[in-house]
Amino acid sequence: MKTNMKGRHFVSMMDFTGEELETILETGFDFKRMLARGQRHEVLEGKSLGMLFTKPSTRTRISFETGMTQLGGHAQYYTEETTQIAHKETWEDTARIMSRYLDALMIRVYDLEKYGMARDIVATLAANATIPIINGLDDKEHPCQTMADLMTIIEKLGADWRRKKIVMSWAYAERVKSPGVAQSMLAAASLLGMDLTIAHPEGYELDEAYMSFARKAYKQSGGKLSVVKDIYKACNGADVIYAKSWGSLKMSKKDDNAYRAQFREDWRIKPKHFEIANKVANYMHPLPADRGQEVANEVIDGPMSVVYDQGENRLHAQKAVLALVMR
Amino acid sequence: MKTNMKGRHFVSMMDFTGEELETILETGFDFKRMLARGQRHEVLEGKSLGMLFTKPSTRTRISFETGMTQLGGHAQYYTEETTQIAHKETWEDTARIMSRYLDALMIRVYDLEKYGMARDIVATLAANATIPIINGLDDKEHPCQTMADLMTIIEKLGADWRRKKIVMSWAYAERVKSPGVAQSMLAAASLLGMDLTIAHPEGYELDEAYMSFARKAYKQSGGKLSVVKDIYKACNGADVIYAKSWGSLKMSKKDDNAYRAQFREDWRIKPKHFEIANKVANYMHPLPADRGQEVANEVIDGPMSVVYDQGENRLHAQKAVLALVMR
Amino acid sequence: MKTNMKGRHFVSMMDFTGEELETILETGFDFKRMLARGQRHEVLEGKSLGMLFTKPSTRTRISFETGMTQLGGHAQYYTEETTQIAHKETWEDTARIMSRYLDALMIRVYDLEKYGMARDIVATLAANATIPIINGLDDKEHPCQTMADLMTIIEKLGADWRRKKIVMSWAYAERVKSPGVAQSMLAAASLLGMDLTIAHPEGYELDEAYMSFARKAYKQSGGKLSVVKDIYKACNGADVIYAKSWGSLKMSKKDDNAYRAQFREDWRIKPKHFEIANKVANYMHPLPADRGQEVANEVIDGPMSVVYDQGENRLHAQKAVLALVMR
Repeated sequence: MKTNMKGRHFVSMMDFTGEELETILETGFDFKRMLARGQRHEVLEGKSLGMLFTKPSTRTRISFETGMTQLGGHAQYYTEETTQIAHKETWEDTARIMSRYLDALMIRVYDLEKYGMARDIVATLAANATIPIINGLDDKEHPCQTMADLMTIIEKLGADWRRKKIVMSWAYAERVKSPGVAQSMLAAASLLGMDLTIAHPEGYELDEAYMSFARKAYKQSGGKLSVVKDIYKACNGADVIYAKSWGSLKMSKKDDNAYRAQFREDWRIKPKHFEIANKVANYMHPLPADRGQEVANEVIDGPMSVVYDQGENRLHAQKAVLALVMR
Repeated sequence: MKTNMKGRHFVSMMDFTGEELETILETGFDFKRMLARGQRHEVLEGKSLGMLFTKPSTRTRISFETGMTQLGGHAQYYTEETTQIAHKETWEDTARIMSRYLDALMIRVYDLEKYGMARDIVATLAANATIPIINGLDDKEHPCQTMADLMTIIEKLGADWRRKKIVMSWAYAERVKSPGVAQSMLAAASLLGMDLTIAHPEGYELDEAYMSFARKAYKQSGGKLSVVKDIYKACNGADVIYAKSWGSLKMSKKDDNAYRAQFREDWRIKPKHFEIANKVANYMHPLPADRGQEVANEVIDGPMSVVYDQGENRLHAQKAVLALVMR
Repeated sequence: MKTNMKGRHFVSMMDFTGEELETILETGFDFKRMLARGQRHEVLEGKSLGMLFTKPSTRTRISFETGMTQLGGHAQYYTEETTQIAHKETWEDTARIMSRYLDALMIRVYDLEKYGMARDIVATLAANATIPIINGLDDKEHPCQTMADLMTIIEKLGADWRRKKIVMSWAYAERVKSPGVAQSMLAAASLLGMDLTIAHPEGYELDEAYMSFARKAYKQSGGKLSVVKDIYKACNGADVIYAKSWGSLKMSKKDDNAYRAQFREDWRIKPKHFEIANKVANYMHPLPADRGQEVANEVIDGPMSVVYDQGENRLHAQKAVLALVMR
């Protein structure tokens, strides 16, 4: 157990050790049981979390706001338009001044002009803040989602979870999205020594910075990483099929849209993908899913789907992060 | 006293019995006295209410948010634009996932393309949620307003309130509004056995589903229902003149606008309406009133007006609903 | 010590005595130390503050919301668009009905068609509300900022602060802003008997109502007021250079924009302004600063800058106001 995370930013999975991630997960399970049995755990009484959203959100916003309430504190909701960022106050000054009022700041920013620009904003906040900065999804990662995903994998696959075949796959959708979920999972899996298969068509390669981090971390953690371009090969014998769309880091949005259409059928998760998976395989998705594009209704509404349990774990996982870094 | 309402939706008055409504009212009076004497009543400590508004709100939003704070919990404010509903997440998925984080969800939605579409959304939420759904005004009803109205009627008219003449009347306004307030009052009055007079010009008939429910319920409850088309006949001997505008369920908005102009004078509540009412008759309105259209300033600002007391009772009545369904 | 401020509005510095301002300041220092040593001070447990913003805000909104949480209560965030003010509910009715739910209301409104129109709204709220109205910046004053400024001056200048030379100066910026900060400081300084130098070019005179109030109050308090049109004369021997832009009360915005350009160099605070000031002089600004216009980066980011400490004091000063008027 490695518990001393007080004051740490929660921006990238790559900033943490496997042992630290395990401590967060265990704390998440602790809080989940406490909530279920009605046991108060107001460890952040009187504390304030700022939440700055540049994009709409349901899960992230509600899970953080409810989480702070359950921990005895309070979460504040902002958009760019309602703050002086609208009047061009710099991100540096924003970080400095928010640090004087808040106990931590969560930010969601993605889909800017170029890949990496959102992370630059998050990094600028982290460099100038004296409070923990929490990444609620940028263009590189979605570490809060990954902590919830890991809790779900552990709950569904049991003690042997590290040796189960987890498929983190690209899926077809018309809308172009961030590769953050896949990249955070890749980094976390490499730190925790999981058996991870990354699947995507040619052109949807993940950021090489994450691939090389993972290859190196896997050498230490002793897990197994595969990268395949055939969705059926990936699903074969899978215990988890976690499939979501992301945009190409190599193509323009326009080129990507024209190119991706060819993958519409094979890369939409359907019952037949589960026929070749393990019998009790689970379907995962961070939601909201583009129904009929990323996944067929028979799958996301079927017995293999654990998407609502997965969504619920956002609450428990984030409470663990908040409690550990804000206490 | 019928207290077991835990987990119930609060969508339609027609889902409740008279005895249940009485229990809510008595709980509202309890909370009102506790607040006045500074007695804490944090029965929802650590609990979270979501509030989803598709329309602006002053009373509903503030009374729910303050109410949750006084009950020891917290209320979260959302609009469609700030949630993934903006990205076309379905109402079904919205209900399922919000149920994982929240302890109850309040929704305000009305004025969609067709009468009944807003209620369909509320019903979809209720069918898919595992938490109580609370109707903060849809196109069919405004049950929270009615509970506040009933508290006000009881406070102002005393023990004999069931035998006092309550006029629920249409009023003139340029803006077309929901008949929700009148329909919720009709259903509640029929369950509680009140003496209710519905008044409106030809063409502004309430939804027949509410009329037939009321006629049937009145047979059981022993009250008295009249429907008149003459505002002066309605006001004659009235103890309460509750008058607000609503749109015709039969005409298009355009036709309605042209047609209603003829009622501008008679159906604007003026001192002369009170001259034929009982001496201590009360003027009621859910606010905001279209001053000069629905009502003359001499009335809404006069001694007969109880509109601010009525508005305040939103707080107490809703706290009662929240405590009973969320505990 | 003059502590009986329960129920008072906090709209204008001119409504308070010097002794009352001192009590607020001392209470602010009390709360600041309590927070630092982890001592709970939930004197507003279960109470609700409304916050109505017609303009974006970072400091005011976050400091009030965090402040209410630390005091054990809750702050609610509104914009005009999300309330029935959007549906033309009057300010009178808004004040009356909000008084039934809230324990106090903070409002930020400025930059309307004409100087004074924003204050008229605040005054209308105050006249119709039965709860304290708190001015979070209107077109005439920014009293919350001034309380934070005074805390900062006392902290930085020590026991002898009343005899130190405080320069409250106009500064160049492209954007036209409210003279509220300067006018609130002028009124407060006159009540507290400070040594204040007001500096601005011809045409940026403060509202004569504030000037004449100050001249009269200075006679009682025994401090010293100078008004100069030369920024260098002002900075000479200064202990604090507090410089921010404001719009002319005499010129149209268009004329003002053309006229002010000539002051771009002299009235941008640079190291040379500090060369003629006292050695340990402090640079103050309420933030956000128009960097490169009002102030050079070497100053606002230099050792003379106390702007983030000043910003932090918003929290402590406002908590003092809230606790004293809302208890």
